[in-house]
Amino acid sequence: MSELTLYLAPGTCAMAVRIALVEAGAPHQIKQLDLAAGEQRSPEYLAINPKGRVPALVTEHGVLTETPALLLYVAQCFPAAKLAPLEDFFLLARMQEINLFLAATLHISHAHGRRGSRWADDEHAIAAMKAKMPQNMRDGFAEIENHYLVGPWILGEQFSLADIYLFVVASWLKSDGVAIDEFPKVAAHSQRMLARSAVQQALAI
Amino acid sequence: MSELTLYLAPGTCAMAVRIALVEAGAPHQIKQLDLAAGEQRSPEYLAINPKGRVPALVTEHGVLTETPALLLYVAQCFPAAKLAPLEDFFLLARMQEINLFLAATLHISHAHGRRGSRWADDEHAIAAMKAKMPQNMRDGFAEIENHYLVGPWILGEQFSLADIYLFVVASWLKSDGVAIDEFPKVAAHSQRMLARSAVQQALAI
Repeated sequence: MSELTLYLAPGTCAMAVRIALVEAGAPHQIKQLDLAAGEQRSPEYLAINPKGRVPALVTEHGVLTETPALLLYVAQCFPAAKLAPLEDFFLLARMQEINLFLAATLHISHAHGRRGSRWADDEHAIAAMKAKMPQNMRDGFAEIENHYLVGPWILGEQFSLADIYLFVVASWLKSDGVAIDEFPKVAAHSQRMLARSAVQQALAI
Repeated sequence: MSELTLYLAPGTCAMAVRIALVEAGAPHQIKQLDLAAGEQRSPEYLAINPKGRVPALVTEHGVLTETPALLLYVAQCFPAAKLAPLEDFFLLARMQEINLFLAATLHISHAHGRRGSRWADDEHAIAAMKAKMPQNMRDGFAEIENHYLVGPWILGEQFSLADIYLFVVASWLKSDGVAIDEFPKVAAHSQRMLARSAVQQALAI
């Protein structure tokens, strides 16, 4: 497999794909976008990802986007790393269920605190979304804590892509005004993730 | 494989899972929830899906949720139906990318027209979200029309889960105040879907 190129920005969900690539031992290069400077809306980047967001993964076959799709692609291309229960359809679906919950509920909740202008034009409405965001993050993380996180990893003994993605989304809690310690299992999980050398290497960009 | 049970409500994204089950020839029963009556928040249903939403798929191994995860599960459990390019990791990732875009961008845009109270508490903000929703649906469908839909099916010659999911999300356009004819390829795709006997059978509940 020829080298992959990942477009990312620190602090975004694209970091989950970066961690997965390092965990997988996948040959890749990274290209950082300066979101504050609007590089994601440059003509050059829009030619790569018309949606103007990170992540984007350039492969020999074309460009792929959407974090959970990229995560599964990495796991399938590098099966020796065992980043997903590829042979167990039920467990794989559970992992995908969690990744979807992170993408379509928790990431969306988080975005309402920063990018409310996606969903309403007036300042008052954007402020109202920002005000409700911490409670939505709490509700979503309560679901992770009480329903999904088996321990030590989210699926139990088997480390998976959902651990990587959860770790990145949990890293947003502090800036969202929520103490991770409200969720002891999630907090311990994040510490477990930080102890992994691949995670340390991936974050050191 | 023992019989699956799908909890759904007409008009929701759960219908995509219903269509996939019929397309797959999967033995299953359906249980309809009356969302207007709040059945999704009954103690009985919350014991099945604590998130209080449809779809939920009861399998012999446990309950699964989140539409794109259920769709892939159906395709993997019934591979003879060829509902996903399971052997082609890149094409599978493209299909997943589209399903993620439908779930985390288009379904979310749609929800701001009806369930804005998820993201803000005051009436003014909820009205502001509702006002912006049609444009967000247009922007998302322009992405489908111009970038994703190869034709005749979304991935090209191969029919897949993304066709099923797109069809269901496109069926919301009219009530969202957007004419599907603004997107000729999407409109033709929906007609193609309606001509499939499995789709007709799945919708006739």
